[in-house]
Amino acid sequence: MRFLILYVLLSGPLVGYAQAPKDSMAFWIREVYTQTLREEAAYPWLRTLTKDIGHRLSGSKGAERAVAFTESLLNGLGLDKVWRQPVRVPHWVRGEKEGVQMITPAGTQNLNAVALGNSVGSGPAGIRGEVLMVMSLDELEAMPDDQVRGKVVFYNRPMDRGLLNTFGAYGGAADQRTSGPALAASKGAVGTVIRSLATRNDDFPHTGMTALAENGPNAPAVALSTNDADVLAKAVANGRTDVFIRTTCQMQEDVMSANVIGEITGTTHPEEIILVGGHLDSWDIGEGAHDDGSGCMQSIEVMYRLRKMGYRPNRTIRCVMFMNEENGLRGGKAYADSAFANHEFHLAAIESDGGGSTPQAFGVSAGEGRQLDRHLAHLAEAASLLEPYDIELNAGGGGADIGPLKPGAGLLIGLRPDSARYFDFHHAAADILENVNPRELAYGSATLTALVYLIDQYGIGE
Amino acid sequence: MRFLILYVLLSGPLVGYAQAPKDSMAFWIREVYTQTLREEAAYPWLRTLTKDIGHRLSGSKGAERAVAFTESLLNGLGLDKVWRQPVRVPHWVRGEKEGVQMITPAGTQNLNAVALGNSVGSGPAGIRGEVLMVMSLDELEAMPDDQVRGKVVFYNRPMDRGLLNTFGAYGGAADQRTSGPALAASKGAVGTVIRSLATRNDDFPHTGMTALAENGPNAPAVALSTNDADVLAKAVANGRTDVFIRTTCQMQEDVMSANVIGEITGTTHPEEIILVGGHLDSWDIGEGAHDDGSGCMQSIEVMYRLRKMGYRPNRTIRCVMFMNEENGLRGGKAYADSAFANHEFHLAAIESDGGGSTPQAFGVSAGEGRQLDRHLAHLAEAASLLEPYDIELNAGGGGADIGPLKPGAGLLIGLRPDSARYFDFHHAAADILENVNPRELAYGSATLTALVYLIDQYGIGE
Repeated sequence: MRFLILYVLLSGPLVGYAQAPKDSMAFWIREVYTQTLREEAAYPWLRTLTKDIGHRLSGSKGAERAVAFTESLLNGLGLDKVWRQPVRVPHWVRGEKEGVQMITPAGTQNLNAVALGNSVGSGPAGIRGEVLMVMSLDELEAMPDDQVRGKVVFYNRPMDRGLLNTFGAYGGAADQRTSGPALAASKGAVGTVIRSLATRNDDFPHTGMTALAENGPNAPAVALSTNDADVLAKAVANGRTDVFIRTTCQMQEDVMSANVIGEITGTTHPEEIILVGGHLDSWDIGEGAHDDGSGCMQSIEVMYRLRKMGYRPNRTIRCVMFMNEENGLRGGKAYADSAFANHEFHLAAIESDGGGSTPQAFGVSAGEGRQLDRHLAHLAEAASLLEPYDIELNAGGGGADIGPLKPGAGLLIGLRPDSARYFDFHHAAADILENVNPRELAYGSATLTALVYLIDQYGIGE
Repeated sequence: MRFLILYVLLSGPLVGYAQAPKDSMAFWIREVYTQTLREEAAYPWLRTLTKDIGHRLSGSKGAERAVAFTESLLNGLGLDKVWRQPVRVPHWVRGEKEGVQMITPAGTQNLNAVALGNSVGSGPAGIRGEVLMVMSLDELEAMPDDQVRGKVVFYNRPMDRGLLNTFGAYGGAADQRTSGPALAASKGAVGTVIRSLATRNDDFPHTGMTALAENGPNAPAVALSTNDADVLAKAVANGRTDVFIRTTCQMQEDVMSANVIGEITGTTHPEEIILVGGHLDSWDIGEGAHDDGSGCMQSIEVMYRLRKMGYRPNRTIRCVMFMNEENGLRGGKAYADSAFANHEFHLAAIESDGGGSTPQAFGVSAGEGRQLDRHLAHLAEAASLLEPYDIELNAGGGGADIGPLKPGAGLLIGLRPDSARYFDFHHAAADILENVNPRELAYGSATLTALVYLIDQYGIGE
């Protein structure tokens, strides 16, 4: 509190004159971390989002309530503008609890399973087929269709836990979920089960989007918990094994939803936008606490902190809660369409969608036609001001929602938290508030605030 | 598996000839991380230690069983030597559940509290006194004894959450626990309550050692949960508030216990010891999962991994489970006494006692009469081989148990994990297996293995 006047004195001159800027900036950033870590403001907001509202798949009541909640939160911060940007979103509904059973001569066993997002239902009678276990799409592709027809394809390649970065391990296994079911159906399979994309051996199945074949046939697709994938693989090794799948999920008509946006208008360069955001929708199991309640609440905390510290930015700072990242990316696309139509220039767009754990780095990419090296060189001094907080600026990164801005943006930046625990929770019933640590969440908020501030101060160079 | 022969071929020549050493070492370290992260070997051991054995304060049955368990674990690894080193330890017992109550005109309220380790009991009738709240030892010191006599002193200075490193925040508040009660008693207080040394606002009281006055009076001392410290502070602000304390803890006769040690004898420089260890004892609430079951199991995993990869070290690699770090440090002292008596030379002693979270760095100190800078310069190439794993070698650090080796050792090194969550659990009932992540634990094990290997390869210079 007693520093408040000092901030105004310090941040004022910086705008126009850049007097002793580095020292002043270091001081300012230190205060951002200290105050953010002491206050842990985002955590109670995340509690409301996860416990009072809960999960919020696009088109659901939860999503609608989340839009209203974050709009009202932003309205309470004294920003220059807060608005909803309409977005038409797909409306997929899971329906009844999935019934998935393994049938062997020894008997029938229920498996922990969830339908993959956007997948088709099985019809009321369910489907049944002999299990055909494969470890990759290539392996399935190489098989004659005769061998696949009528079967339930089981993709069982685990994420490689040996990779330090679990996002890399996810990338190495995710094609089984995103493209595996459509491939299986195109070869005549009656259904697909996949091993959950998860680092841990436990009983949580992990959902996530699968891409339907636009013209081809589609069949039910579910994910098994890693433990039950092991159970199924063992049964398959022992002899003929069938799987029964009953799902009632279906894609319904699109509905109207919204991105939620708040803005502090820049004083000297209002036409240059620095965006910080996350996605407000989540899967319909768990609470979307890490994915991406954390990123949304952190982005709002950036605005809260800037206001609380009396910072008047040179550029326009905009906080965006994107809708529908999980199963359509319509929010990201609508936002970019609008930005291009309005000739808005995003100097930098920063997304936090890697969970609420300890931040370690920012991954930076350049907009089309730009040279990343030159921008990173320009930001070298800014990067040095993040070193005391163990935060690096690395080449390569971004975020799904900000991706559509790439043709016209300056920099696209993703916050990179510690990834060790993320895929224990991701898209599963385990993604709940209790698995987010308030201090780690605040550490991420402070780090985002510091970068927004530094880009506002330094720009990104030519 | 198929790489095993390759390791032997690679690790053989390195010992004598150092052919293409950096590339080979990088390859070897990569395999350490890959295998350790894939296998997560320490976690099931930690489950046995925490769930089958549980907490293990010096002198307790749990400590005795933990000695037997880790000895048998080491015996199963095919090391060159495994032994127990006798240590005489203090035997403090908590006795019955503490009764701590706040008494105001509005009524009596139970507070979540635990006796501080080594503290004296209240006698069967308990003690009662008016609360005198202070924020520091200095504040109490400055008061005339008349103002303190007959009171219950309440130290209520929180850990500063604004500091990024929570160990720093702990250091800034810990004197209230370690020295506060003796000071209060010396000024005539009938008891002391402290605000738990914790980062989180919750209902867990956190214990820990307090130092008794050797000749002076001592009085009962308990820690309140952070939530209940706030409750008490509010009551004090509203008017006269008494606290009642009943504890039956007492220090009993010393008992015999042991450090547990396993060794792979060096091939070319067996007289140079590289130690890796943690402490086997824990507080008597929770399960000592982070503190320091994690460090112990990681140290054993280092030996396991070295054996499994067929590595034959140049120097002697020794794994040590120290007894009695928490309330006496007798194990560390006995180990060093024995080392000095036997003219053993510890080239490096590495301790993992910062919890089982994601490792970030090693803190390095030099033995007496040595120049740290020169050793760090010698290890620059080794440090560069840890960079791909986001691990730094920093000046300053060590560990309580290895501290007594300082007069004769080369380097004293502490593993530094992410500290964000540590003081949510430390010395509290929350320190249980479920709060340790298997992958983060393994990441620490791999990092310790890599450093042991690098020091074995490079030495530490002159």
